[in-house]
Amino acid sequence: MISADQYIRSWLAKEPGAKATVQGWVKTRRDSKDVHFVQINDGSCFADMQVVFDAGVVEADAMAQVTTGACVRVTGTLVASPGKGQAVELRGESLEVVGTAPAETYPMQKKKVNLETLREFQHFRARSNTFGAVFRVRNALAFAIHKFFQEHGFLYVHTPILTTSDAEGAGAMFQVTTLDMMNAPRRVETPGIDFQSDFFGKPAFLTVSGQLEGEIFALAFTNVYTFGPTFRAENSNTPRHLAEFWMIEPEMAFCELAGNMKLAESFLKYLIRDIRANCAADLEFFQKLYEPGLLDKLDNVAGSEFAHVPYTEAISILEKSGKTWEFPVFWGCDLQSEHERYLTEETFKRPVIVTDYPKKIKAFYMRANEDGRTVRAMDVLAPGIGEIIGGSQREERHDVLVERIREQGLDEKHYWWYLDLRRYGSAPHSGFGLGFERMMMYVTGMKNIRDVIPFPRTPGHAEF
Amino acid sequence: MISADQYIRSWLAKEPGAKATVQGWVKTRRDSKDVHFVQINDGSCFADMQVVFDAGVVEADAMAQVTTGACVRVTGTLVASPGKGQAVELRGESLEVVGTAPAETYPMQKKKVNLETLREFQHFRARSNTFGAVFRVRNALAFAIHKFFQEHGFLYVHTPILTTSDAEGAGAMFQVTTLDMMNAPRRVETPGIDFQSDFFGKPAFLTVSGQLEGEIFALAFTNVYTFGPTFRAENSNTPRHLAEFWMIEPEMAFCELAGNMKLAESFLKYLIRDIRANCAADLEFFQKLYEPGLLDKLDNVAGSEFAHVPYTEAISILEKSGKTWEFPVFWGCDLQSEHERYLTEETFKRPVIVTDYPKKIKAFYMRANEDGRTVRAMDVLAPGIGEIIGGSQREERHDVLVERIREQGLDEKHYWWYLDLRRYGSAPHSGFGLGFERMMMYVTGMKNIRDVIPFPRTPGHAEF
Repeated sequence: MISADQYIRSWLAKEPGAKATVQGWVKTRRDSKDVHFVQINDGSCFADMQVVFDAGVVEADAMAQVTTGACVRVTGTLVASPGKGQAVELRGESLEVVGTAPAETYPMQKKKVNLETLREFQHFRARSNTFGAVFRVRNALAFAIHKFFQEHGFLYVHTPILTTSDAEGAGAMFQVTTLDMMNAPRRVETPGIDFQSDFFGKPAFLTVSGQLEGEIFALAFTNVYTFGPTFRAENSNTPRHLAEFWMIEPEMAFCELAGNMKLAESFLKYLIRDIRANCAADLEFFQKLYEPGLLDKLDNVAGSEFAHVPYTEAISILEKSGKTWEFPVFWGCDLQSEHERYLTEETFKRPVIVTDYPKKIKAFYMRANEDGRTVRAMDVLAPGIGEIIGGSQREERHDVLVERIREQGLDEKHYWWYLDLRRYGSAPHSGFGLGFERMMMYVTGMKNIRDVIPFPRTPGHAEF
Repeated sequence: MISADQYIRSWLAKEPGAKATVQGWVKTRRDSKDVHFVQINDGSCFADMQVVFDAGVVEADAMAQVTTGACVRVTGTLVASPGKGQAVELRGESLEVVGTAPAETYPMQKKKVNLETLREFQHFRARSNTFGAVFRVRNALAFAIHKFFQEHGFLYVHTPILTTSDAEGAGAMFQVTTLDMMNAPRRVETPGIDFQSDFFGKPAFLTVSGQLEGEIFALAFTNVYTFGPTFRAENSNTPRHLAEFWMIEPEMAFCELAGNMKLAESFLKYLIRDIRANCAADLEFFQKLYEPGLLDKLDNVAGSEFAHVPYTEAISILEKSGKTWEFPVFWGCDLQSEHERYLTEETFKRPVIVTDYPKKIKAFYMRANEDGRTVRAMDVLAPGIGEIIGGSQREERHDVLVERIREQGLDEKHYWWYLDLRRYGSAPHSGFGLGFERMMMYVTGMKNIRDVIPFPRTPGHAEF
């Protein structure tokens, strides 16, 4: 096994003079009369190891196999690099071709391949500069999320993926079955499938959110968080939708909206500071190739105090803006991206948390305000993207919650255990959700959500 | 929000004299003539905060509501505790009942409720001693897994949950669909469902393993790991089977079986040492209530050098044992639990890694040995459980892999991208899988896998 101190990342931090063996995949090879330059990457960092072979050190047959994508092992001595971009390079003394990559057919040639094409080669795209950087940032961001919550005493809970309740109401669901779809048994008395012989004895679905189950755990462990996959069966073919994505949902007992807002702010700042420190080269690459101003955008979020504005006031700001909106602004309307971005980018010029939305446009579980028309919702809007976090204080009063469920035409029987939480040991509590891929797009500047997840699932696409 | 320094865990570590406010759920209340003793737990640690109220400090009406399961907030002063088991207790000065739990109907009374019954109350069982301890250990173990791999320079990769390939062959799969099962469109030319209008345009399933996709990432980032949910649609109603469970699958390029074994050993030891250090009180509780000798068992694993034995030699040991086996032992048989436990518990008296199994009983992707009849598989067997980790070196040779796929009657067209990995930049690589819940059972001594996952999914059960 290659230990981390044998990574190219580690060798590049060493002084000249050391003997080194590196293994990885060839990015490029350039030949001149006297020397061969080979760039090798092992995924440990953005930078390649530049290896310089004097002519004749490696036999011609072997050198001919050193093509883009080939896997090689090289031994040599680290020397000061005369080139830009790296302090040391490797003077190659021996080379082994571990696995070839015939140039006639290997799809990832050194000429720039566009992102769309790369999506057809999900088994190779991780070897490119862009996706190497994307997935290193994804790794760092995922671990930063765990570190943040663990340092703050939150308990990680795995909420279920399979569910027989469609109680969450957050979107279209995938059905899960072990029935033979050609010969699914029918009910006798009323038309329909007889699900008694299905795996769970009733219709089952993929979760759209772990929030409701997260509340169970918050009302036992005080502060908890989920981090797991969630699903939407919406037939949306856009750069912002995935059928399968990862979500982070903290939930805190004894916490009202003010505490919820504070946590969301410190969470986002922590994540940005962490990857600014741990993924510097990758982020610089994104700024150069994908989003000019990326680092300033991130530093502005990490460094500014988030603004707070109630929805009603936000509507008033939008109405007075003098702007022409594609979607009309009025009290009761849902905020669209254009509104959100105006508020955060032009009005406040920093992240802003909009609170107390009309109850009609928000979920049944959000805590009702005394005005009878708004709920304790909060959306965190950030410059360059709009909404990035959505959350609320939850309705902890049994009678009010029952009323809200009925008001929305839902069946309270489906919510028996959720209501039970309000009958036995209820407490004020709050939480929010962050879409992991949405955060990934924000911190990398990648514009298509399919390019920030290893294996994107979208309508018609679930290969690999 | 309650910060970690306001947790009962933190107050219990403080010196007498401090003012404290604690909030949590009532475990029990005992009344004597002059005082009320109230045990409060907030999930932050196994121990409760014992609160002592002098008679009259709290009005009788309020004290009557302080019943098991009620949510309360108490302010008082920490004093040295005359009782056993805690250094300090709280002299209560004021009490607020945040949420009542009417004793007539609350299902979690202080009399011991058995584990089977608690499974019907998944929304409350986390408040019990047993499940509090289980889910704290689960949290610590999950974070230890991330720490281990991050410290060792592994990249965390989210392999897909939804897949249209049933290429993994590790077990029965759940089908996922958005078709109306009553009116699913039929194919015209041959009998069967026409999946063109299903979400992914073809039959889709829930993953049974992230290994194959993990290999893609190992061949770009050198060392990677997955940690995510996996699924089995087997109709197995046993204490060891779940339809939904979490799995950890590291995958390492430039790594042969020896490195794989070394990593598995250091991984298991790291996890055990971590929870021994971070979950001491919870583990002592498990030893006391669920598995005598638990701590010695764990320390033995953490402290011993794992034995290595090839399958052929293991068979010979079993044949010479003089034991009568329920399942007959012969070269070519799969090892059953009785065989595994004999090897680890009686022959070696420590964990043992069995290697080089017959190719006929192992998956197609395991690297073929030169003897033509065995493959580079490895199973880690541990005292008290048998197999806990399964892994292998992977077949990295394109021609051999094609042959193995054909030999097993599989269709190589389904493996086009997996084979591509062997055509372009292939490298020796290895990996293994650890079932997270299996490890949870091992470290807690819990005997039913439904009791180590927050929301168990089994045939007929996917409530909550």
